[in-house]
Amino acid sequence: MNTNNYCVIMAGGIGSRFWPMSKTSRPKQFLDILGTGKTLLQQTFERFLPFCPKENIYIVTSIDYKKLVLSQLDGIGEGQVLLEPARRNTAPCIAYATYKISQINPNANFIVAPSDHLILNIEDFNNEINKGLDFVSKNKALLTLGIKPSRPETGYGYIQISNDVIFAYDNLKKVKTFTEKPNLDLAKVFVQSGEFYWNSGIFLWSLSSISTAFEQHLPEVSALFKEGFDYYNTDKEDSFIQRTYSECRNVSIDYGVMEKADNVFVLCSDFGWSDLGTWGSLYENSTKDESENSVVGKNLFLYNSRNCVINLPDKKVVVINGLNDFIVVESDDMLLICKKDEEQQIRQFVNDIKIQKGEEYL
Amino acid sequence: MNTNNYCVIMAGGIGSRFWPMSKTSRPKQFLDILGTGKTLLQQTFERFLPFCPKENIYIVTSIDYKKLVLSQLDGIGEGQVLLEPARRNTAPCIAYATYKISQINPNANFIVAPSDHLILNIEDFNNEINKGLDFVSKNKALLTLGIKPSRPETGYGYIQISNDVIFAYDNLKKVKTFTEKPNLDLAKVFVQSGEFYWNSGIFLWSLSSISTAFEQHLPEVSALFKEGFDYYNTDKEDSFIQRTYSECRNVSIDYGVMEKADNVFVLCSDFGWSDLGTWGSLYENSTKDESENSVVGKNLFLYNSRNCVINLPDKKVVVINGLNDFIVVESDDMLLICKKDEEQQIRQFVNDIKIQKGEEYL
Repeated sequence: MNTNNYCVIMAGGIGSRFWPMSKTSRPKQFLDILGTGKTLLQQTFERFLPFCPKENIYIVTSIDYKKLVLSQLDGIGEGQVLLEPARRNTAPCIAYATYKISQINPNANFIVAPSDHLILNIEDFNNEINKGLDFVSKNKALLTLGIKPSRPETGYGYIQISNDVIFAYDNLKKVKTFTEKPNLDLAKVFVQSGEFYWNSGIFLWSLSSISTAFEQHLPEVSALFKEGFDYYNTDKEDSFIQRTYSECRNVSIDYGVMEKADNVFVLCSDFGWSDLGTWGSLYENSTKDESENSVVGKNLFLYNSRNCVINLPDKKVVVINGLNDFIVVESDDMLLICKKDEEQQIRQFVNDIKIQKGEEYL
Repeated sequence: MNTNNYCVIMAGGIGSRFWPMSKTSRPKQFLDILGTGKTLLQQTFERFLPFCPKENIYIVTSIDYKKLVLSQLDGIGEGQVLLEPARRNTAPCIAYATYKISQINPNANFIVAPSDHLILNIEDFNNEINKGLDFVSKNKALLTLGIKPSRPETGYGYIQISNDVIFAYDNLKKVKTFTEKPNLDLAKVFVQSGEFYWNSGIFLWSLSSISTAFEQHLPEVSALFKEGFDYYNTDKEDSFIQRTYSECRNVSIDYGVMEKADNVFVLCSDFGWSDLGTWGSLYENSTKDESENSVVGKNLFLYNSRNCVINLPDKKVVVINGLNDFIVVESDDMLLICKKDEEQQIRQFVNDIKIQKGEEYL
């Protein structure tokens, strides 16, 4: 195993769209939202074990989730959990991990990935990651995993590729443009063209490539985190990070680096991926019963019901009769019953609860 | 207040149609099913306080519900709670109360009523009861309260009246026939005719009238309970009743007495009555919000939903969006979501749970 390989798992999200399962105190990545017996963070962690030693896997999360991370990942050291004192989006998160690890291993190669995505075909995924690591260790390149779109999804950003074959791997392409989330008509055009891939938010690069890119495209972020070189991995790291985050602006790696750099490449992949960003995407990626219901819960009595997403505590005895195309989720004594095609309103519902009841329900 | 007046409240039912609110361990009459702050039994008890001294109100219930009755009815004595060791339908229940009270007061007049009905117009109700008490205290008659039907309900028995005016009260009629629950076509004919009234199961009679009727029409039941004359209201009552119930057959007062006697009269009433036998009847009799939802529960966030019956624990935070014509009930960590027009299947659902999970859920 290549001890220069490192994995940075971004686990700071709060995921209000999955209320009442996910809450600020326990976001989606810390839940077994698919009912597999493992949380999404645990699945993500295990997914990267083939590529690097366990001690090279770092988790960046909010200071509020330190205990959750340590309790869910067996044998991980406190030094591998990077605690953000504030939410500043993905660029500062990645800069923190980059410069901290640079102090340990200047020859590091990185896989950077969200903690709450689903990968269905692990063998294909492993192949792509191996290709990617090989490529970024030999080339001054920023690499992202693009996913072949299976539907005109309007909830994702798309990456347009240049079709020139320029490398040993014929699914490795130069990026032409990153796009914002398209409307449905545009999304259909994207899918039909064959030139567009979903932006998975999974990145690979060497320490030197990403450092150079930060210096070039986000010089003030780079400067802030570089300053900590003597503090990282010492007892001064916490207070340095506290100070740095209060000064650092909110900026995403996509906007701040990927869209501006000219050495960005994409591995055009098709390993069954979802960001599990909504109950709908969860439904699409779940195994279903003979009536097309996606069910988690051991004591459910389901009659004459179709196309539902149902997620219930095991101990709860529930009878559902005559319900079609609904989301039914109970967690921590909170219950959601919502039409599946109106799930975009869940954020608003949660906001209403917040106004009337206070933060503790969210 | 006439100290010869007695009230017998029948509170032994188990009500599986209201699962998960009602369960064998806590049937409907012991629940605040309308969200008024009082259980149905408490409402029934208070409803009869104007007609007789508190100590003349007797509750007949299962031995299993003794504690529930005593805890819900303030200031009632243990001697007023008659405990049935087995379910034997209404005739033995009434015979027990009749002969027990005969030992205390041979001049008693009775109001006999179920514990779990709803009365909306209490003033009209009181007028009818007063009329009825006056009538049965002066006449050798069995009197039942008939309810003017507001719809062709197929869940109730009907009473056909003879239209001859024979008494001081013009809404007091001789009964022509008792009918079984009709089908819808027949129920429509009943309602249109103006000759049929719902059988409320609320009865009035004097001790002498009902004793005579028992002797005449259910002589073996009469003989069994008469035998206890020396045991009632002594420490031998329990063992006598234990023995008697094991020997007594299951028979209703309607079938065993009312349908056979020729001195049966009906007070044709219209005071807003329901037996609250189903969620649908509960819905009909509830106050509703502007979207025609009947709601119990303090932390419900309801959106785009109409014509639902919703009954939730106060502490439970629930979001419901886009649900129409459903029953949503949670109680004791059990949840029911059922199409309103399929509520007759609830018994079957409960039976399925019983088979798979055991009695403790029911």
